Amino acid sequence: MIAAPKRRAPGPQLLAQLQGLFGDRLSTSGAVCLQHGRDESSYAPCPPDAVVFAESTEEVAHLVRLCAEHEVPVIAFGMGSSIEGHVLAVEGGICLDMSRMHRVLAIRPDDLTATAQAGLTREDLNRELAVTGFFFSVDPGANATLGGMVATAASGTNTVRYGTMRDNVVSLTVVTADGEVVRTASRARKSSAGYNLTQLLCGSEGTLGIVTEVTVRLHPRPESIVAAVVNFPDVNAAVACVIEAIQMGVPLARAEMLDALTIQAINAHSKTALTVAPTVFFEFGGMQAQVQQQIDLLQTMATSRGAGQFQWALKPEERTRLWTPRHLAYFACLQLRPGCRSLTTDVCVPISSLAACIAETADDVAQAGLMAPIFGHVGDGNFHCLLLIDPTLPDEMRRAEELSERLVRRAIRLEGTCTGEHGVGLHKKAYLHEEHGLAGVALMEKIKRALDPKNILNPGKVVSLNARL
Amino acid sequence: MIAAPKRRAPGPQLLAQLQGLFGDRLSTSGAVCLQHGRDESSYAPCPPDAVVFAESTEEVAHLVRLCAEHEVPVIAFGMGSSIEGHVLAVEGGICLDMSRMHRVLAIRPDDLTATAQAGLTREDLNRELAVTGFFFSVDPGANATLGGMVATAASGTNTVRYGTMRDNVVSLTVVTADGEVVRTASRARKSSAGYNLTQLLCGSEGTLGIVTEVTVRLHPRPESIVAAVVNFPDVNAAVACVIEAIQMGVPLARAEMLDALTIQAINAHSKTALTVAPTVFFEFGGMQAQVQQQIDLLQTMATSRGAGQFQWALKPEERTRLWTPRHLAYFACLQLRPGCRSLTTDVCVPISSLAACIAETADDVAQAGLMAPIFGHVGDGNFHCLLLIDPTLPDEMRRAEELSERLVRRAIRLEGTCTGEHGVGLHKKAYLHEEHGLAGVALMEKIKRALDPKNILNPGKVVSLNARL
Repeated sequence: MIAAPKRRAPGPQLLAQLQGLFGDRLSTSGAVCLQHGRDESSYAPCPPDAVVFAESTEEVAHLVRLCAEHEVPVIAFGMGSSIEGHVLAVEGGICLDMSRMHRVLAIRPDDLTATAQAGLTREDLNRELAVTGFFFSVDPGANATLGGMVATAASGTNTVRYGTMRDNVVSLTVVTADGEVVRTASRARKSSAGYNLTQLLCGSEGTLGIVTEVTVRLHPRPESIVAAVVNFPDVNAAVACVIEAIQMGVPLARAEMLDALTIQAINAHSKTALTVAPTVFFEFGGMQAQVQQQIDLLQTMATSRGAGQFQWALKPEERTRLWTPRHLAYFACLQLRPGCRSLTTDVCVPISSLAACIAETADDVAQAGLMAPIFGHVGDGNFHCLLLIDPTLPDEMRRAEELSERLVRRAIRLEGTCTGEHGVGLHKKAYLHEEHGLAGVALMEKIKRALDPKNILNPGKVVSLNARL
Repeated sequence: MIAAPKRRAPGPQLLAQLQGLFGDRLSTSGAVCLQHGRDESSYAPCPPDAVVFAESTEEVAHLVRLCAEHEVPVIAFGMGSSIEGHVLAVEGGICLDMSRMHRVLAIRPDDLTATAQAGLTREDLNRELAVTGFFFSVDPGANATLGGMVATAASGTNTVRYGTMRDNVVSLTVVTADGEVVRTASRARKSSAGYNLTQLLCGSEGTLGIVTEVTVRLHPRPESIVAAVVNFPDVNAAVACVIEAIQMGVPLARAEMLDALTIQAINAHSKTALTVAPTVFFEFGGMQAQVQQQIDLLQTMATSRGAGQFQWALKPEERTRLWTPRHLAYFACLQLRPGCRSLTTDVCVPISSLAACIAETADDVAQAGLMAPIFGHVGDGNFHCLLLIDPTLPDEMRRAEELSERLVRRAIRLEGTCTGEHGVGLHKKAYLHEEHGLAGVALMEKIKRALDPKNILNPGKVVSLNARL
């Protein structure tokens, strides 16, 4: 499935230069390279020729200058938790492991911002913030690095309230393809000073520059947080209830819909006794009075749509107990079919089309004879269909890929996108033309060529220059 | 002050082609060209050679293809309310007047989005939305067009709650420099599908593409809205109160600080009897209980900082009466010195530095012997200093420009930006190097060259290609 363009392996001269610079922080060991040649996707590994563990922006800049000189690819690597083949070294080259760049550089409660090296994980950042009364909101599930989350424009369960990574990035320090260091923006909360380099880099998957430092927005921890779980007679009712709440201006902190099959998986995996029906996990946050009013409103809306009893959780430990099964849903679903792998879809549609899109997809799954729990971020219009496939059965793999393709086309037809939060990587490149048109992709290619004329930054991802040069 | 590069006037052949296409919607009249060669800045007019009144994306694409062929500039023109020289035809060319492209194309309450042609003004959009229960939030003061607001990444008084234009643009239809039509994104609420063309275009001031259609987010009208005005013993206390509220998570809808001189101007202009002291105009919005809790909290915070009595307004007509003087502040300030013009600054700094930045600026104004009321969007860290100057006194103009320059450098030193919401135009180009570094501006220039190699889209704005080619 992966095209095999010319490999551009580092020659002995470059390796010697890197050895001189990085010493034992350069590795060409097969095991280390293999570990850095795969992510959480179902792609077979595609290892780089060497791995470098950088510790500073200056080292990254030096590395990129050398790679530019030798025209050898550089692929930034965070936690390897991406799922569309983002970090596979399809043309060989040097993997830049960011894990040693994990320092918090500044926490500024007065400005509601924090700055850290790009290799810091979101959980580690939040641990550092624990004493401040503020938190970093973006939560894609995996404990990804900030740099990785910038690269894919990550989002997750509380996007409905706090926005995606795009909404929470203030400024980036970036190494360009010729090894220059650029800060993409000031620390002001807004700016109209020139082209938006921050947002151009955010979501560019390491193909336009390498993010080495990230300044993010922080949010005050709400005075009161309440979690709730409630089931609905069908997916339609569940989705409609959440959308109505958003239209009414109820500031939901989270609203996650899980279909009956996912609930069945959760019950088996987490030993819960949830009613096997489409279910929404809610979180409400804010000032005390506000949260109570949100809850009252939502209960009325849910009840009028035939919802079951609400299960509530007020204390932190109760909330954790209530929500943990949701956070483990992915693993629970994999257990529905031991030994399987998951081909995970990621479409996002305008919220008015969400229920229809899910219903058509569920029919399609049934007709294709596949097993595929569905859950998603209802308030954003984004859902995931976990196509559980036996990797030893090529025919099943093919049917899953075909279903995934039909789902992408369905989403685009409904004016949605092929990827709400996972990114393009290798897997969604084929659909960019359908989503953005030839002229839109041509613009992207012009940008890539202008900023990385030697095509050394994570080549083969997002856009394919070779195919059109 | 404006550099005078080679003019690239349309020849008789291009004019004849345009005549054939647009008939009497092409004008070369001196008066029409003059009217389209200026904005609200203090720059002398710089008229285009002709003005075209287009009515559709297809017409714009046709126009751009012809201009590309002849290498003649095209400058999109909305309401002419920009204030940094954005629409001045510094190299001549064709002005594209968007005023006939004012159709609402779709209002979708279920998705909380609306789509309109780029020449529609924000007030006209909100009039169309009046019956829906939703509104378009971005309010830069002037009744600008949606396209103009995209071009400058506009914001304004309720950004603290609802975000800037960047946060409220879902998707754009854009005509590229070679006359192709691109839709920058789907209508999904979030996407990770390729480079963020929407945000690259937003704030690009007509230099990377011409925006012809805009899809924006809508927000539900809050159940309850309350306005309040309160004065503080000094600017420091006023700013500190607002920042504390933001840190506590109080969802202020607006928080506008006006200094004593501005209040004096307002009292004279609007016949109000406000205490002449630093004053904050607040707006609270949300569900009933929430608003009450916000008000209680804020009153406690304000009182502890020596605030005066709150004036409240609950009913729509009362709120309008309370807020109208703030909306007219710009004109009130001009009346402080009849016959004067205003050089308006627009820095934005991290909120923790706002009070210091305002204080230093007020000292600087006093030392420079200038009159300059100050007001701003405290929650964003953005404020405007209206340098009231007599246009017949070159020395005063010079002192004002010098003060403006010192203010920009002060903001950049405080990790802020030279422009929070007005944009670069001609006036802020000189500061982009200081704010983004040479390497940052070089990236912007590469993008401009890649997307507009003939430099026909609003040339001379944001970046100057000629100077570095």
